[in-house]
Formats: sequence, C-alpha cells, structure tokens
Amino acid sequence: MEPSGWGRFLGKMREEMPLVHNITNVVVTNFTANGLLALGASPVMAYAKEEVADMARIAGALVLNIGTLSAEEVEAMIHAGNAANQQGVPIIFDPVGAGATPYRTEASKRIVKELNLSLLRGNAAEVANVVGLEWKIKGVDAEEGEGDILELAKEAARKLDTVVCVTGKEDVITDGEKTYIVNNGTPMFTKITGAGCLLSSVIGSFAAIEKDILIAGAAALAAYGIAGEKAAQESEGPGSFQIAFLDQLYKITSKEVDSLASISLS
Amino acid sequence: MEPSGWGRFLGKMREEMPLVHNITNVVVTNFTANGLLALGASPVMAYAKEEVADMARIAGALVLNIGTLSAEEVEAMIHAGNAANQQGVPIIFDPVGAGATPYRTEASKRIVKELNLSLLRGNAAEVANVVGLEWKIKGVDAEEGEGDILELAKEAARKLDTVVCVTGKEDVITDGEKTYIVNNGTPMFTKITGAGCLLSSVIGSFAAIEKDILIAGAAALAAYGIAGEKAAQESEGPGSFQIAFLDQLYKITSKEVDSLASISLS
Amino acid sequence: MEPSGWGRFLGKMREEMPLVHNITNVVVTNFTANGLLALGASPVMAYAKEEVADMARIAGALVLNIGTLSAEEVEAMIHAGNAANQQGVPIIFDPVGAGATPYRTEASKRIVKELNLSLLRGNAAEVANVVGLEWKIKGVDAEEGEGDILELAKEAARKLDTVVCVTGKEDVITDGEKTYIVNNGTPMFTKITGAGCLLSSVIGSFAAIEKDILIAGAAALAAYGIAGEKAAQESEGPGSFQIAFLDQLYKITSKEVDSLASISLS
Repeated sequence: MEPSGWGRFLGKMREEMPLVHNITNVVVTNFTANGLLALGASPVMAYAKEEVADMARIAGALVLNIGTLSAEEVEAMIHAGNAANQQGVPIIFDPVGAGATPYRTEASKRIVKELNLSLLRGNAAEVANVVGLEWKIKGVDAEEGEGDILELAKEAARKLDTVVCVTGKEDVITDGEKTYIVNNGTPMFTKITGAGCLLSSVIGSFAAIEKDILIAGAAALAAYGIAGEKAAQESEGPGSFQIAFLDQLYKITSKEVDSLASISLS
Repeated sequence: MEPSGWGRFLGKMREEMPLVHNITNVVVTNFTANGLLALGASPVMAYAKEEVADMARIAGALVLNIGTLSAEEVEAMIHAGNAANQQGVPIIFDPVGAGATPYRTEASKRIVKELNLSLLRGNAAEVANVVGLEWKIKGVDAEEGEGDILELAKEAARKLDTVVCVTGKEDVITDGEKTYIVNNGTPMFTKITGAGCLLSSVIGSFAAIEKDILIAGAAALAAYGIAGEKAAQESEGPGSFQIAFLDQLYKITSKEVDSLASISLS
Repeated sequence: MEPSGWGRFLGKMREEMPLVHNITNVVVTNFTANGLLALGASPVMAYAKEEVADMARIAGALVLNIGTLSAEEVEAMIHAGNAANQQGVPIIFDPVGAGATPYRTEASKRIVKELNLSLLRGNAAEVANVVGLEWKIKGVDAEEGEGDILELAKEAARKLDTVVCVTGKEDVITDGEKTYIVNNGTPMFTKITGAGCLLSSVIGSFAAIEKDILIAGAAALAAYGIAGEKAAQESEGPGSFQIAFLDQLYKITSKEVDSLASISLS
C-alpha cells in the first residue's frame, strides 16, 4: 500500500456513517460522540446489560474503554463483547489506567482473556500492564518508560494475538509481524482529556469500514494526527484546541491525509 | 396568537429562571446544563431514587431522556414522574433510540403508560416506536422514513393523549387537533451530539413558564432553531458551532424570535 | 505573606503535575478534567469501590463532589476518604445542592462527620445546610441569602474544624481564625455549569502542592478568578467563555497572579 492511499477511507466513512457502539468512561462520552459525529461516523453509547448485546450486534465496531469502570460495566463489556464476537463485529479495547490500580489491571486482563479483540490501544504503561510486563504508571497518565516501545507492542500483539497500537510521541501499530510507525499528531493532545479515548473510538470507526485492522488503524492514526496538527496551529490553548480539533475532524479530506500522512514500515 | 408574539417567553425565562429537573443521558449532561443556563433557566440533574421525587416536586418541569438508560434509572424516572404528576409539574419525555433495541422500546412504552406526559419529543422513528408503528431505525439516529410525519405525530398525540413533537428537516408539534410546523433550525444540529436532547430540555424550560404546552413547545422550537441558524453562520464546523450555539442561546432576544420565527398552522 | 507571592504555586504545579483524584458529578467530569489538565495538574476520575482507596492513596488530593450522588457513590466517597485520611492526603468536599433535598443534606452531613476534611467549599446555602443553619436554596443554585457570609464561614470552620471556603460575589476562606477575602472572578462563572465544581478541584490541586490549606485555597481562588476575568474579556457568551477560560488556565503565569490577585485579610 502506498502512502498516497492513506486518505481513501474518509469518503467511505462519510457515505456509510458506520454505527460505533462505545462503552466508555463518563469523562469523555460527550467528546467521543462529538468527535465521531464530526468525522462522519454514527456514535452510540449504550451500557445496560439488557441492551448491550443487541446494540453491539448491529454496530460496525464495538469500543470498550475502562476509564471509569465499575463491576457492572465490566459485565456489560463482556456481554457486549461476546455478542460482537459472535457477529464478527470488531472490538477495540482501551485499557485506560491499567496498572494504576490492581482493579483496573485485573479487569483489563479479564477482558483480553474472555474476548477476541481486533485491536488494543493504550500508552506504553497500559499495554505493558495488560500483558503483564513491568512499567511505571501514575494515575491514568503514563510516564515515559525506558523500555523499547516497538518491542513492547510486538510482544503484546503476539501474546494477545491481536493488533496492538501503542501511542506516545510517535505511534506504533503492529500485528506482531508487520509494524507501522505513525508520526502525525501534536503535543496538545496531552493537554486535553480524552484524546486517547476518542482515538480508540475513531480507530473503531475505521475498523467498521476496513477489514484489515492494521491498515485501518494506521490510517486512523494518521487522519487523527493530521487533524490535531491543523487544530494546534490555530489554537491558543487546550480549550480552543479541543474545539478546533472537532472542526478539523469534520473538515479533513482524503487528499490532505494522502499528502500529510507520515507512516512508515518499521 | 400572532407570529409576532413567539418571542415573548424569553423575558419571563430570564426573570423567573425556572428550575428544570433533568434525568438524562451521560453523553449530554454537560451540554444540556450549559444550554439551559445560557438560555436563562436553572438546570438540575438528579438521579438517585432517594431524591428524585423531592427534586421533581420543586421543579418547574421534569425532563426524562433514556439515551443511556439503565434499570435503576428507569425506576428513578418513574419515581420522579409520579411525584411530578402529583404536583402538576409538566413532564417532557425524550425516548432516545426507541426502536434501536427492544430494551429501549419497552422502557419507552412503560414510561408513556405509567406517567402522564405533557410532551413527547423525538425523531420520527423514535416516536413511531413508542406508539407501536413500524419505522426504520439505526442506532439512535433515525433514518428518514417514508411515512407521513404529520400523520404520525397526530396519531401519536391522540393515542398518548399528549402533545407530540417530531423533529427532523422541519419540526411538527401537535396535540392531535391543532398542529404547528416550525421551520427554524440548521443541518449543523445533526453534526453535534445532544442537539435533540437539549431541545427537549429547552422545551421543558418553556413548559415551566407557559401552561399551554403546544404554544410553549412551538415557541421553544423557534427560539432554539433561530439560535442554531445564527450560530451556523459563524461556525467552521461542529466544534465551533456548539460553542457559538451556547453563545446564541445566551444572546437571543424576544425581538429576534418575534421577527425570525417561522411557524405555521398546518 | 505578601500579595506579591500569591502566584508562586503555579510553577510547582506545572513541574510536579500532582495527581488529583476526583469523585465528582456526571455533569462536570469533562470540564473538571480539562480544567485541571489545562492548569497543569493530573486529573483522575475513579468511582468503583474496588479501586477508590488505591487511587486515593497515590493521589496528591482527593476531591469529593455530590452533584449527582447515589448511595453507591457516597459509599465510594467514604471509602476513598478513609484511605486518604490514613495516608494524609488532603480531602476537599463540595456539597453541591446540600439543602435542595433531604438526601443531599444527609449525605453531606455524613461525609463531614465520617471524614477528616481539609477544606469544605460551597455557596452560602450549601455550607449553611452542611453545618445545620437555615438558608434559602433553590435546586443546586443558591439564592443570595441575607445572612452574614463571613460569620457563616467562620462558624462552619470552627464547627467542622476545617478550612471553609464560601464562594459568591466575593469569596471568603477561613480556618475560623484567620480569614481571607478574595475579590477575583467574573459573573460569567454563574452562566456556565461546573465553575464551582472545577474550582473545588483546582483548590485540590493547590492543596496537593502546599500544605497550608488556607494559603493554598486563597491562592487557588485568586488564580482561578484571574483566569476567569481574562476569559470574560474575550468572550461573547457562556460558550466562548468556557473555552477561553480553559485557555487562560493554561496560559496564566505566576507573575500575572502576583500582580492581579485581590486578596485581603478580613
């Protein structure tokens, strides 16, 4: 695949408007829904055990995010995830804060064990904790670790048999064999809440329209990062950045992604 | 009533600042509270079964929205609704996603059966599902149906014995006999999350200061739509639209609504 | 302490990025997280009884806010609060809407009884209700009372043996003996939701880096108020104010707080 083609999914996104079912944390629900809508997808948030399976079955992708998990919500995630697996609906998992508390780590491990994920996305510390490697973590914001992120991502991908995406200064996405490094983005993403969470949902929206999850994920990372770069240029701080970013997700074109995507095979 | 009078409620709103009790979904709580505050009302969100009845009794209106319903929340809605009915507090019901899953449809039907609503607001698919008519639906965003929206609204109003408002390209509001068509608004409303949810709450704030629910609802639709039109003119995308819209709800005057309201009797 | 020193905490904030654990209401979670991030702190929201103690123990401050309380959440607050007390982590309590319903008043009283607070922040009505004095209240927005706010704050501080901050047209902060009046801020704070809630969390972030809670609180009030003043100057309404305010929390400097803080000993 040539870099010139990385923008080709946006047209399909806006035409098909895939339904993305999010079971996500209370901090980012609004931003996630608005981000997906701006990009062209159809977000739905549904949490009740009585309906999550029905909703997951009709979705194009299911995104699970444990940012403000509870016992009830984890049950709902497993329930929705089983339905998604039966139906062949791709599952994206964002283990927010795995490692910060034992409860998060255990919930994450249960989810990756019981469900057949299509993609796991987190920062280095979160991914390391999900697969059982040591990594420093403070709250839900990972400190930059000393480990080799590339190796971490590959090892996690092999161990979990899924595509793994580790985001940070540069983003790594790998199926354990083939690995892309994506160099789009902006430090402003670290100044707003939910930039990682929305990214996971955006990857879900790409996975809903492209079966090759590695390609879908890399394309999503690039489009997301480019929209962020453009938004940062016209912002004065995290408030205006957040708003400009939603505008840019709405305005970004296939052509822009084609020309600005910075994706390389590792 | 002359069109020139449709703006007359805004002064009362800002003077009385009616308390609007919302039991709504987690995606839109912040936007709903900020929208009501901007307009001049006093929003309160309260969900616990231990307090919803107390809160509903002192409110000017109760708004129920099942966007992220749970069994516990539906119980709280019934509980709050009974208190509101006893006290004569108008209830607005927004059956978000009715039809998307059986659980939502059943919860909606239970609410309209057990409570005495003042107004039901939804898109065509949601309203159809609440009253038991066939309509296509995907997630919580209704596809445009082929049915006659005017007839649907009237039939629902007669069946439920309440005012029904069906929003879409144009908005219909009817008590089953008298029907207004409101032609204010902007397509940008479909690019942000919670435009419909906030509208239901804004209708609630109008119902808190005007007993004629049909008139209150039509006036709310016009004011809301006009604020949206003005916001769309100064926006570059859904992010900046959302912010401009909150500003416009704050700035909109009775005079503007008087002159820009596009309301006609059907 | 000279007024010229009130800005001295901002550098430490941005260097140490203290972890602030919030158990807060669903309306303001996003705004709270974004506000803390903009200022330079590290917000975390965690609610599950299985993890709140672990999270509180590693936090620099714990902020409890009952804006949308439930029985489960109050238990989690007590649980987290006990862990914070054992670890010496300061607790800030925001009794949103105390007095609006008996349930809120009782929950507030239980929290101040069972936990050892570092600071209580509310409007006059909320604080009065927590300590058992009469005050008028409507919903979660207090009407201006007739009582002497200064005396109320001092009496509450002595009764609860904690620092008490009563916010309103001017802000009062006292340990019962020493009292500061802070005159920074803007009426726009009353036009957006969560201005008080975020303030409580911002006070928490200052308490995480400065052990003298009275000083930390007064400095937080000034910095917050100044950022609000600057934001109001460039806003057209509550939407743009909210965004400008996040930008100003990000941009505000120690020097600006030093020169613009309006703090006097009572």
